[in-house]
Amino acid sequence: NHIIVTGFGTSGQEAVHELLARGTDPREIVVIDGSEKALELAEAHGCNVLCGDSTRDKTLKDVAIHRARSMIVSAGRDDTSILITLTARHLAPRLPISIVVRNEDNEVPARQAGATTVINPVSFAGLLLAGSTTGEHIADYMADLAASGGRVKLIERAVLPEEIGQPLSAIRTGLGLRVYRGKRPIGFWEEDSRRLQTGDVIIEIAEGDGHGNALPPV
Amino acid sequence: NHIIVTGFGTSGQEAVHELLARGTDPREIVVIDGSEKALELAEAHGCNVLCGDSTRDKTLKDVAIHRARSMIVSAGRDDTSILITLTARHLAPRLPISIVVRNEDNEVPARQAGATTVINPVSFAGLLLAGSTTGEHIADYMADLAASGGRVKLIERAVLPEEIGQPLSAIRTGLGLRVYRGKRPIGFWEEDSRRLQTGDVIIEIAEGDGHGNALPPV
Ligand SMILES: [Ca+2]
Ligand SMILES: [Ca+2]
Repeated sequence: NHIIVTGFGTSGQEAVHELLARGTDPREIVVIDGSEKALELAEAHGCNVLCGDSTRDKTLKDVAIHRARSMIVSAGRDDTSILITLTARHLAPRLPISIVVRNEDNEVPARQAGATTVINPVSFAGLLLAGSTTGEHIADYMADLAASGGRVKLIERAVLPEEIGQPLSAIRTGLGLRVYRGKRPIGFWEEDSRRLQTGDVIIEIAEGDGHGNALPPV
Repeated sequence: NHIIVTGFGTSGQEAVHELLARGTDPREIVVIDGSEKALELAEAHGCNVLCGDSTRDKTLKDVAIHRARSMIVSAGRDDTSILITLTARHLAPRLPISIVVRNEDNEVPARQAGATTVINPVSFAGLLLAGSTTGEHIADYMADLAASGGRVKLIERAVLPEEIGQPLSAIRTGLGLRVYRGKRPIGFWEEDSRRLQTGDVIIEIAEGDGHGNALPPV
């Protein structure tokens, strides 16, 4: 029931940093990298480490991938990251796998390789840049939403028993944005959001943890 | 009243792509780059182009920076981007300037140089990676929110006359998330959000434009 992080470059480091900020026990994190130097940094944070090649079955078996609760893949090169994803998906058919790709053309292959979540930082930056031309707070709000610290955070959770039959707008843990009913997304403005059902997954905005900050001080 | 884009690498290109998707007239966009090849691409989209060095006063004056409505800085190197920002801020004290930085250490200097918005794609990717370990839809929702297409979009706008005195939760254009009253952010859960005032700026989630998609097809 651990989190596997393959590749401890800048994205991998930022991810671990945020996991720790969210209260994840560093002993639940296993970092794999080919560089001893990168691993020293991970060890200094209290994470478990393994020096090895994550594209190999043996490496992933050595970190007990079949028992992991999720995996983060950010190997620095898209081809390597996609091969790691393929290898991992083969060994752990139901494992949530998040991958960073740098080239937009590799988003679809990454999903085909079995990634649950595909993140393209460059593409995201472009969206935020464009959004920032229509409002100076847009990018800051997005950063706050993505980080658990600060004033708000975006949460995904299962519907609570006491919420069944109630509207999404009535949840008391935050502001309800979207319901996933199976694979179908239902917006806050849609009729079907007025009656939550067993099995629904809710996306909501809740108050942030306050400590820490998504934004650098000015 | 145009948008200046300095640097037409991948982030700059993605930003222009999204601006066009949002309905911005390409003739309102001026792209500056030192590479003729990059500019050919911008021209093919119908944008105005200028081959030059954006760290020079003359270049920015040539694109009438004093009349621009906003500026996007993504020069590929943080030192160059920060120098462009300093130059631009000197020439246009009130211009909204959004800058991409790659190194976290440069976020504060970028703000000190006068950037209104600082975007760090790597840091953002780390946040999204960490968030994705707690919910498979988090990163996709964030991408949908950032893009104008898809099911939802994040909007920043001035309060409407008919909303004055009403609560944030009663706005009819979308789901109200936050109010900026001067520089002070007020959350949807806070008492002060129950009575909108003249001069308030609202952050809301509205239905997306539908066409296009923040997510690649699977
Ligand atoms: Ca936050
Ligand atoms: Ca959208």
